[in-house]
Formats: sequence, structure tokens, C-alpha cells
Amino acid sequence: MNLKTRLEKHRAHLDRHLARLLPPEDAEPRTLHRAMRYSVLVGGKRFRPILCLETAAALGQQTPKLRGLEDLAGALEFIHTYSLIHDDLPALDNDDLRRGQPTCHKKFGEAIALLAGDALLTLAFEILARLRLPDARRRAQIIQELATAAGTRGGMLAGQVADLEAVGRKVSAQQIEAIHRAKTGALIRACVRCGALFAGARGPTLKHLSEYGEKLGLAFQIVDDLLDVRSSSERLGKPTGLDAARHKGTYPGVHGLEESEKIAAELVEEACSALKFLGEDGHVLQALARHLLSRTT
Amino acid sequence: MNLKTRLEKHRAHLDRHLARLLPPEDAEPRTLHRAMRYSVLVGGKRFRPILCLETAAALGQQTPKLRGLEDLAGALEFIHTYSLIHDDLPALDNDDLRRGQPTCHKKFGEAIALLAGDALLTLAFEILARLRLPDARRRAQIIQELATAAGTRGGMLAGQVADLEAVGRKVSAQQIEAIHRAKTGALIRACVRCGALFAGARGPTLKHLSEYGEKLGLAFQIVDDLLDVRSSSERLGKPTGLDAARHKGTYPGVHGLEESEKIAAELVEEACSALKFLGEDGHVLQALARHLLSRTT
Repeated sequence: MNLKTRLEKHRAHLDRHLARLLPPEDAEPRTLHRAMRYSVLVGGKRFRPILCLETAAALGQQTPKLRGLEDLAGALEFIHTYSLIHDDLPALDNDDLRRGQPTCHKKFGEAIALLAGDALLTLAFEILARLRLPDARRRAQIIQELATAAGTRGGMLAGQVADLEAVGRKVSAQQIEAIHRAKTGALIRACVRCGALFAGARGPTLKHLSEYGEKLGLAFQIVDDLLDVRSSSERLGKPTGLDAARHKGTYPGVHGLEESEKIAAELVEEACSALKFLGEDGHVLQALARHLLSRTT
Repeated sequence: MNLKTRLEKHRAHLDRHLARLLPPEDAEPRTLHRAMRYSVLVGGKRFRPILCLETAAALGQQTPKLRGLEDLAGALEFIHTYSLIHDDLPALDNDDLRRGQPTCHKKFGEAIALLAGDALLTLAFEILARLRLPDARRRAQIIQELATAAGTRGGMLAGQVADLEAVGRKVSAQQIEAIHRAKTGALIRACVRCGALFAGARGPTLKHLSEYGEKLGLAFQIVDDLLDVRSSSERLGKPTGLDAARHKGTYPGVHGLEESEKIAAELVEEACSALKFLGEDGHVLQALARHLLSRTT
């Protein structure tokens, strides 16, 4: 099976599972549940949960047999979606479009969007607390991993604040790297690590996979910056050119387009090198990383 | 030691512990950490964490020996504070004052307040995942308990939406009870249950304590409604009379003042009855419940 088919299969499977994990629309509070379902199910590459599934698969865990692994992957997507909903709010980026559709607050109003984000974060932890794992300490490790990656000490929330505070200021190469590592890299790294932890990884295995996740996470945000400059709004499903218009710190802004592309490509190769220890079992994760460079949405 | 002294001792102790659990102000992102610390440490009755500590104490767990129990209590206060910060935002209640001081968004702006709420919720789960407990399954049970109580299925978020949607509408006695149970009752019940779970409770013990928590939680919100009508803004540290001005559903609005007081008093007595099985060990929890009726802030 080539990568494209494999990704499409994952996506279809995950979409069905996400729909099952979300509260039903006909249960109260309906507006809130509708807003949660809308924001998650409107679409998305599902890159983060796929990364988690493929990491576990590379370590020998076969997805279909492990209901718990799908739940973990779902929780990762909920944390990602919560961050998008809150980021899009008028108090932050004030975005009208996301994944080609009106943002949550455009469709449901600010109050419901705020609470829908809160609800997805809360639901993620509820699912994680219920994860079926042979070792209950592993579950706690996974929860800690994600809370830290989403948190304020080098995690996603730290990145959002740094991003906010960098607007209109001249940022250095070092600063933009730190922002991207926190804003996007930490959660992507955690997706890899959680898949690994789920599969029972420890020691050098976990260390190598963490390195893969770290490099990949930074590369992902650089490619995102590049897409914001190059892609059309129509294809990307959200407005483009906004980073520049908002005077946001970006890799192209600091390093220029060509150099940014080069850095992203190098990071992807470094990520792939970290997987050497897996031999052939690392091929899908490597393909996934290289695929990143050619993504158009 | 009388109840007042006991509560003051708890508060002083908890305030110190909350300050330790929060990220330091001089760590990046400083603005966010300052906002988190401000909102938690500006004051508060610490009713929820005290309820957790006293429940564990009633079951024989002595606080000073159990560092984990204080962490659990801290996480409860963080979840409560996150809900206050988000509730106060312009998109929801648009409140300027809380605990006698400017609300988080008044002091730090909307963007930081939104993220500070997110950060406190995330930190709470990080702390819970780290809880030291002899039985790791208990930890998962506690996390699940809190995520559910804060969530959308009869939990805090369900209550916030129902509250929002009831504005300006005539609510029935049944509806206002459901709103209050969800908005405030679920988390208070969970504080009692988490203290009990921490102490190893199960079966009938857990059932009786849940009933205590449930009655107490509903009574708490009714007293809150009454205070909004009766107390002065100065004493309460937040604007009063707002429920009526906003056409919010309240117990006095549905049942009148006197009847609401009666209902609250009855609920407190029912809560106390549920503790009979504890004998003398239940006296502090009973005193805490009765104290509620005389609270002025």
C-alpha cells in the first residue's frame, strides 16, 4: 500500500472513531455538542493522530486490535482542535475560516466557541483517564506527557503567548525557533511519544523517537509558514498571507523562503536518521516525514 | 479547634501550596504565569479544596502526611479558577470584578485571560497525572471523576451553556435545579468524591459521601443566588444584583427568597443526614455544610 492510500485509510477510520468519541448532537447541551462535533468533523489532515498510530505500528502494535490506541489518537486530535478553536477567537487571531469552513465562533458565536474549546480539552483528558492499558502507570505517563506538551512550560500555551507577544516585533532566528518548537513542535513530539509509550517503549527507543518527533514538529511549522506565503487561500481552506499582514514572526520572515525550505528539508532528514534503529519498521514514519515537505494544505 | 479557626488554617496552608504548584512568575511566558498566579492567589474561600481535604480527613487520612492530597486539592481549585476566568470573559458574563479585584481579562487583556484559563485546566490535569497514590487505578478514577464533573454531560460546561441559554427565558423549578446541579453541584460533588477516592473509599461509603456532596453542591449555588440578591457588592467582592439585571435563572427568581432559603436549609440537613454512617468523624463535614447557610461572601 502506498503512503497516500495508507493515509486515506487512516483518515476514514479516524473520522469514524472521532464521531463515536464525541458526545451525540441530540444530547444536551445540544448547541455545545454541535459546536464540538462541527469543529472536529469539519475535516482535517489528522496528522497528529496518524503520527501516534504509525509510531505504535512501527513498534509492532497493530491498530485494529487496540481500541485504546484509537482513543488515544482521538484525544490528541481533540487537544489539537481545542487549540485551533481558541486561537481563532477574536481575542486571538480573529480568523473567519478554518479548514475551508467558517470558524467555530463564526458559526456558533463566541461564547459557545470558547466553551466548545474548553469541552474538547476536558473530553480529551476524560478519554485518556479511561484508556485501557495493561499498566496503569503508563496511562499516567501519557496524561502527563500531553498535559506538559499542551502546557505553559515550553508547551503549546507557551508558544501561543510567545507568538502573540512577537507580533510586530523583530524576532531573531533563535526566538522563532523557540516559538515554533513550543507552539507546534511540543504537541507533535508528544503524539510520537504517546504512541511509543502506548506500545511500551522506553530507554533508547523512546529517546530516538522523541528526536524524530521533535525535528518533525519544527519542520511541520516551518512548512506551515511557507504555505501561508505560497499557497492560495482556496486550496488551504484558510486565509493566506496573514502572517505577514499581522507582522507575525515566521521562518520565511527571518530566514527568507529558500533558506526556510532548506532548513525544513534538513530537519526532515535528521528526523529520518533518528529512526535508523528501526530498520525497515521505520519506513512509514520516514515516508510520513518526507511527505510533509510536499504538502499543499 | 472551632470551625472558623480550622478553615483559616486550611486556607493559609492551601494558599501556600497553591503558590508552590503554580509556575513561577519569572519563568517564560511571564505574562501568562502572572495572570495564572493573579487569578488563583487573589483570594477565595477555597471551599472546594477544603471540602476535599476534610472528606479525606473524615475517613482517617491526615492531611500533613499526604503531599498528594494537597496536590489534588490544588488541582480542584485550579479547575474552579479556570471556570471563573472564562465565565468572566466578555463573550460570557463580561464581569469586571471578582474576589474584590479586577477580573483576569480586565487586568491582562482578553487573549491572556483566555489562555490563562486554558493553562489552569491543563495544569490541573498535569498535577493529577503526577499524583502519588499507592494504587495507580485510583489516580485514573480521580482524573475521570473530575473530567466528567467539569464536562458537558451533566457537568460544569453543561451548566454554563444551560445558564447562558436560560437568560431572559422563564425557567421552571425543574430546569433551574438541573442548571445549578450541573453548573456548580457537579464539581462540588466531585471534590467530595475525589477526597473519598483518595482515602480509598468505595461501596456504601462512597455512595453516602456522594449524596452529601450532591446536596451540598446544590445548596451552595442556591446560597450564591441569595447572596446576589441580598449582599452588598463591597462585601461580596463582585457586583451584586446582576442575576436579576441579566434575567438569569435563579432560585429566588423561581421560588422567591423565603422558599429558596428553606430549600437550601433542607438540602443542608439532608446532606448532614447522609453522613450519619461516619458518626463523630462526620462532624466537621456537617459543620462545614451548616456554615454554608450563614456565609456572607
